Amino acid sequence: MINTQNPSMEANSFEDWGSIARILAEALPFLRRYRGQCFVIKYGGHAMDDDATALRFAHDIVLLKQVGIHPVIVHGGGPQIDAFLKKLNIQSNFKNGLRVTDAATMEVVEMVLAGKVNKELVQSISNAGGVAFGLTGKDGNLVQARKYMPGGVDLGFVGEPVKVNTYILKKILEEDGIPVIAPIGVDENGQTLNINADTLAGAIASALQAVRFMLLTDVAGFLDKNGELVPEMTLAETEQAITDGVAKGGMIPKLQTCIAAVRGGVKGAVILNGKDPHSVLLELLTPKGNGTLIS
Amino acid sequence: MINTQNPSMEANSFEDWGSIARILAEALPFLRRYRGQCFVIKYGGHAMDDDATALRFAHDIVLLKQVGIHPVIVHGGGPQIDAFLKKLNIQSNFKNGLRVTDAATMEVVEMVLAGKVNKELVQSISNAGGVAFGLTGKDGNLVQARKYMPGGVDLGFVGEPVKVNTYILKKILEEDGIPVIAPIGVDENGQTLNINADTLAGAIASALQAVRFMLLTDVAGFLDKNGELVPEMTLAETEQAITDGVAKGGMIPKLQTCIAAVRGGVKGAVILNGKDPHSVLLELLTPKGNGTLIS
Amino acid sequence: MINTQNPSMEANSFEDWGSIARILAEALPFLRRYRGQCFVIKYGGHAMDDDATALRFAHDIVLLKQVGIHPVIVHGGGPQIDAFLKKLNIQSNFKNGLRVTDAATMEVVEMVLAGKVNKELVQSISNAGGVAFGLTGKDGNLVQARKYMPGGVDLGFVGEPVKVNTYILKKILEEDGIPVIAPIGVDENGQTLNINADTLAGAIASALQAVRFMLLTDVAGFLDKNGELVPEMTLAETEQAITDGVAKGGMIPKLQTCIAAVRGGVKGAVILNGKDPHSVLLELLTPKGNGTLIS
Amino acid sequence: MINTQNPSMEANSFEDWGSIARILAEALPFLRRYRGQCFVIKYGGHAMDDDATALRFAHDIVLLKQVGIHPVIVHGGGPQIDAFLKKLNIQSNFKNGLRVTDAATMEVVEMVLAGKVNKELVQSISNAGGVAFGLTGKDGNLVQARKYMPGGVDLGFVGEPVKVNTYILKKILEEDGIPVIAPIGVDENGQTLNINADTLAGAIASALQAVRFMLLTDVAGFLDKNGELVPEMTLAETEQAITDGVAKGGMIPKLQTCIAAVRGGVKGAVILNGKDPHSVLLELLTPKGNGTLIS
Amino acid sequence: MINTQNPSMEANSFEDWGSIARILAEALPFLRRYRGQCFVIKYGGHAMDDDATALRFAHDIVLLKQVGIHPVIVHGGGPQIDAFLKKLNIQSNFKNGLRVTDAATMEVVEMVLAGKVNKELVQSISNAGGVAFGLTGKDGNLVQARKYMPGGVDLGFVGEPVKVNTYILKKILEEDGIPVIAPIGVDENGQTLNINADTLAGAIASALQAVRFMLLTDVAGFLDKNGELVPEMTLAETEQAITDGVAKGGMIPKLQTCIAAVRGGVKGAVILNGKDPHSVLLELLTPKGNGTLIS
Amino acid sequence: MINTQNPSMEANSFEDWGSIARILAEALPFLRRYRGQCFVIKYGGHAMDDDATALRFAHDIVLLKQVGIHPVIVHGGGPQIDAFLKKLNIQSNFKNGLRVTDAATMEVVEMVLAGKVNKELVQSISNAGGVAFGLTGKDGNLVQARKYMPGGVDLGFVGEPVKVNTYILKKILEEDGIPVIAPIGVDENGQTLNINADTLAGAIASALQAVRFMLLTDVAGFLDKNGELVPEMTLAETEQAITDGVAKGGMIPKLQTCIAAVRGGVKGAVILNGKDPHSVLLELLTPKGNGTLIS
Repeated sequence: MINTQNPSMEANSFEDWGSIARILAEALPFLRRYRGQCFVIKYGGHAMDDDATALRFAHDIVLLKQVGIHPVIVHGGGPQIDAFLKKLNIQSNFKNGLRVTDAATMEVVEMVLAGKVNKELVQSISNAGGVAFGLTGKDGNLVQARKYMPGGVDLGFVGEPVKVNTYILKKILEEDGIPVIAPIGVDENGQTLNINADTLAGAIASALQAVRFMLLTDVAGFLDKNGELVPEMTLAETEQAITDGVAKGGMIPKLQTCIAAVRGGVKGAVILNGKDPHSVLLELLTPKGNGTLIS
Repeated sequence: MINTQNPSMEANSFEDWGSIARILAEALPFLRRYRGQCFVIKYGGHAMDDDATALRFAHDIVLLKQVGIHPVIVHGGGPQIDAFLKKLNIQSNFKNGLRVTDAATMEVVEMVLAGKVNKELVQSISNAGGVAFGLTGKDGNLVQARKYMPGGVDLGFVGEPVKVNTYILKKILEEDGIPVIAPIGVDENGQTLNINADTLAGAIASALQAVRFMLLTDVAGFLDKNGELVPEMTLAETEQAITDGVAKGGMIPKLQTCIAAVRGGVKGAVILNGKDPHSVLLELLTPKGNGTLIS
Repeated sequence: MINTQNPSMEANSFEDWGSIARILAEALPFLRRYRGQCFVIKYGGHAMDDDATALRFAHDIVLLKQVGIHPVIVHGGGPQIDAFLKKLNIQSNFKNGLRVTDAATMEVVEMVLAGKVNKELVQSISNAGGVAFGLTGKDGNLVQARKYMPGGVDLGFVGEPVKVNTYILKKILEEDGIPVIAPIGVDENGQTLNINADTLAGAIASALQAVRFMLLTDVAGFLDKNGELVPEMTLAETEQAITDGVAKGGMIPKLQTCIAAVRGGVKGAVILNGKDPHSVLLELLTPKGNGTLIS
Repeated sequence: MINTQNPSMEANSFEDWGSIARILAEALPFLRRYRGQCFVIKYGGHAMDDDATALRFAHDIVLLKQVGIHPVIVHGGGPQIDAFLKKLNIQSNFKNGLRVTDAATMEVVEMVLAGKVNKELVQSISNAGGVAFGLTGKDGNLVQARKYMPGGVDLGFVGEPVKVNTYILKKILEEDGIPVIAPIGVDENGQTLNINADTLAGAIASALQAVRFMLLTDVAGFLDKNGELVPEMTLAETEQAITDGVAKGGMIPKLQTCIAAVRGGVKGAVILNGKDPHSVLLELLTPKGNGTLIS
Repeated sequence: MINTQNPSMEANSFEDWGSIARILAEALPFLRRYRGQCFVIKYGGHAMDDDATALRFAHDIVLLKQVGIHPVIVHGGGPQIDAFLKKLNIQSNFKNGLRVTDAATMEVVEMVLAGKVNKELVQSISNAGGVAFGLTGKDGNLVQARKYMPGGVDLGFVGEPVKVNTYILKKILEEDGIPVIAPIGVDENGQTLNINADTLAGAIASALQAVRFMLLTDVAGFLDKNGELVPEMTLAETEQAITDGVAKGGMIPKLQTCIAAVRGGVKGAVILNGKDPHSVLLELLTPKGNGTLIS
Repeated sequence: MINTQNPSMEANSFEDWGSIARILAEALPFLRRYRGQCFVIKYGGHAMDDDATALRFAHDIVLLKQVGIHPVIVHGGGPQIDAFLKKLNIQSNFKNGLRVTDAATMEVVEMVLAGKVNKELVQSISNAGGVAFGLTGKDGNLVQARKYMPGGVDLGFVGEPVKVNTYILKKILEEDGIPVIAPIGVDENGQTLNINADTLAGAIASALQAVRFMLLTDVAGFLDKNGELVPEMTLAETEQAITDGVAKGGMIPKLQTCIAAVRGGVKGAVILNGKDPHSVLLELLTPKGNGTLIS
């Protein structure tokens, strides 16, 4: 494991320091573009399975911080939760094809998200040299939520965000910290609720008036009817894509979350592939990032 | 569940507001005694099993904060960990009668402490009207640890604290927050380690130069050879009690932790029964608190 | 006299610390209600005559501060002034039944208010463990006033407040101080003026946008035509009570002062009996306080 | 009365603005000498009797503040107290020729100092355009005192300062305020005590590590055996003057107070005539001030 | 050269300290008039030629600062530039009678303004006891400019101000510094431009919402058709004077700059003679200053 | 000229954004090494002649700032001064082979350093996206100097630094500014003195307790007797190299300046070639920088 406090020179494979210096110098104007602004990044549970991807992600996040951007991470943890539910032989009930979060499931969801996935991410960023703070919606009353019943269906302890306490996040950012947030909220009765990580990330991005809401997925972005990546879309075009049926399946709620975030004050929402090497950094470096930018 | 933002009047059983006002007024000089100072409180996993005790504890903590004391909570979680290890059929190895924390066990320990016990305490304090922040030693690099091998025995991922980052704790206290800390540390290689909660609480109390380190147990305090509670002991008397064999079993490490905390700058360490109603508040109110004060 | 810095244990007559702890814990939600907000309290000269009442008042004020409320005291001093005028054989002139404040009277009024009553209150709060600052409208240019001629009658050096310098009060509150204000103002020519303490307290409450303006009197509150205490009144109801003649005599200007304070931004004005034990604390503790709340 | 907010041009008798500008410009280096430092000034009750002197004094104090010096005023009030004791027919007891301050006298002393003399000075400085804060030793626990029994003689409620709370004074100075202090202290039992104004001023000067302690009297300074003013004296010379009997009567305690102040950290103590026009300003402007400088 | 840190007493020719003290005391209300507000002063290159005038100016500026006003200096340097162009045999081209600033000229202009005139002024203020900071429009991006082509004529590297970065100026003022600004700006391509010092001073005065913009010239102010000094003019009267042809030659752009400054938020613009002894101080001291006040 | 506020995409010649991202990510641990610490960099007049080198230097400086290091630049200007002295036909006198700085020369030195070289550097950094502040020792009393007479020889207005006012530099660094300092000082009589830029840079590095003092020269570093670059030297080895005569000519004072800087508290002094591309950045990136490190 890397001890970044004392960077080990053996770990370095650079042959030509001079050209690296040149590249850094040339990258400077791009690094300065979003200085002092927030990037809210939804990081999926799937991406964490691949150790190399996870390590790169942590380094990229610390590099963002290093050059003056304020990253805020919201993570999921679906595969990790499924694995533990299985180990514990907890069977899920389904309504209209959607899994119901009962009390036993909620206990596992919270333990895995807050006690395993969150802490792995915090430690991974710490290993990369950053100072991360793991939070759930309970800590510092970060996320007030309410029960969410899509189409009137009661899915148990499932919630949607009502209010995000940005004061705490801003304090952490001021102290050069990187908030890492598990998608758990609390309703007004103190009941713990499971929130969709995409939805919570979008809400936090709006609350922080982030310059970028980056939704890391496992596809390249939004594809048009010819299967080609659409690099940029307006809100109107995004809505059209949903109406016209070009957007399908899981892409629809992702587009809707992006629309809501931009309506809520986010400058641009990006759907991109979290497994692409350095996908987050590319957003910073390249003329228009990668993935699909909705703004 | 109580919604303390709008205190429900029905919840109130007071018959005589006037006498309550009188009692409050008379308690004033005592409430002012430790204003602006830290109480570091070790809260055991056993105490949480009893809902009424847990609720009272949360209220007492918020009341301490309300009258200007800074409580910092370090919690254990032994019974909760045991229950999950059992559910997951994880068998423990033992060396010299001590349980070895292997990788599979460490994963469960962290999930249960950081994802279950910690979040319950945070929410419980939040329900009582406080603003709690759940932390492990990973968050904000709070606790640097190193492998701990008592008597040279390798117990796996077991650690002892090396350094506590009080900056973060002080920032939380300044913002009127209540830190709630799970006894997890990280060594210099980024390895997660399980730390004894008593030991960590004592180290944090020293680091904060706390006025009180309160070690909540399930006994009344230190009992002399006649089985009578000893209300106050000097460091010398405490060491004598260990040497003379009056202190036995689990009381010995507790006394040692108290000695170390006082040597480290804590004004007074108290061993007391966490299940006594309002045991923490009594420390504040009564002439010499309850339990055994070592100073 | 009590030395609250080192609370004397002998002074304590509690038999049951446990039940006191329970009461404190149960009172917690009520103590938190007005945290961080201002209570402006008019404290009358009559109330000070009774040593026990005065002592209780000081303790209650310090307790308010202790639990995070910002009390600001405005005091009168009628009986004390009368006593000194008599000792000095200063006769008063009257116009339309109202006493005229001539130069000789004004000198005594200021000496008694600023040099006797104010200092007694400051010391009394100090004895109770608070940090009080005695002020008149002259100190820090706190109160700009102008001559007040009710119905065109010239009553001499009698004034009404024009502007309150809240900056100074807020600084004192920030420093955990308790302002104790004598009702003396200065006009634009530097002339000292005697201001009605109720009126000044109401003006200060408005200037501070206080959550409560508490007008301590020697009656239980506003009584309806059946002589029953009215616990709560709207502004409209209060005006109606004046118009209908239900309010009589000295109650009329008190109600008018309360109406003006609420119109000026005070959340609620309360008329209550300052001689009731702990009347100020009861406002905090009980569901709707005691006395009559106008809001 | 002058309204300095809008300086009235008629009030100005300057014939030659140009030469005034020149004088100001030439005075600049002198005005800068003590920038940011404290002058503690004992102002006697006698000086206030003369309106012109009082007005000049207030203007000089505000000018000091204007050019960046921090004046702190401690006032006496002997003649004013005597007048009121007489009006109230309060007879004084004497022991060894010293007046005893009994309870009735103490009440008058406090009223006159805190309620009359202090407020006149505050208002006078306010009229001159400054922001003054009247204080006694009670306000903000400014002066802790203890009973003073010179030569073992019990003079009643007479005290000497034990501790000065400079925090409050510094806060007032930071806010561009001018503290005006009446020589009243409180002992540890909350008992009000009358303190000699010279003594208190010296103690405050030491506590503030003032650059100048200016003792305004009604003589030109210390006179040698030929009756000539001594412009400067070392501590040793001052002590010699007392030992040798050159210093006589009331000059002896004044010299002793100056010695104590300089020993306590004051840079220089000056005995000067408060009735000399602009005596305080001259200290600033002239090469070595007027009066006798002890350093 | 004067070392103002230790004012030399020999330098002082005052015969009567007492009358100086009196004058200072009487000047107090005037010194307080503009406390905490900005004076932006255009100081011409001509005025610097006379050592006595330059020395007086520096002392006056420091005195302004001393009494709490914030002076900001913008200087020219025409004669000094001309002298160096001549020494270097750089010939100027002219268009429509206006000198063209080519690259060789621009280099000299910048060197003389930023490297000679600016540094002399900075040092002169420093000698007088002030803390001056020399700036050009390049330092801290102080002045954004654009090419200026009066009547469409291309005069080379001549600019006009587009934006003034007041943040930097305010920081300097907060730190008790005196900004001394050379009239050099930069356009959006990083090209250095020569700006008219009057114009820049007016723009800075507007940006700072200065209470006074003082345009030091070599005439007494604006003269009416009878050649008499006009002490005060409204904006309308000033425009009329231009339209009517009463204002002639170089006075026209000066009046226009004053009009623009007042329109831009400056409280009053003054045209006055920089060679009058203490002309800047007189603005402060006399009822309506000297020169012509446009407001 | 590059407008870095809106980085022009055409300006970018990168073929492979992904590999740039990878390089940045890999460089991260190195970028973090000196975060929050000062680099004081002596930048020679020779290096500025080459436009490409000058542009690279400015970009490297801004990049240092961007990644959290605080660069402070001290520049020379020998060639530029020589060129102007020649243009102005100013002949130099020599003593013991050293040029004497007479009044005419001093005027040119200051104009060229403060008005030309300094402003070019400031603008160059500004073009690269940084916020630079040009200063001489006069601005804000930055550098107190005294006449320097090496071996007793009077070289005219030549000085050495006595005191550096770090307060101002720290304020600029706090505001994210980059100080650019011309080597001009002032003695206690207000006399301008020309200071050797290496010497001043070393003194500033000591005053700031910089982590690196980088002396940019036109050679690769210190060469041993075989003409090989010595990458690292202790203070003892450096002194030995001078004593042994291995160090020759201009290298001797450079080594002495480095020794003095390290003795004064600088962590490491580096002699390196300012014309090597990105020589400053390489110090950050490579395991031991380039040039010779003395520590």
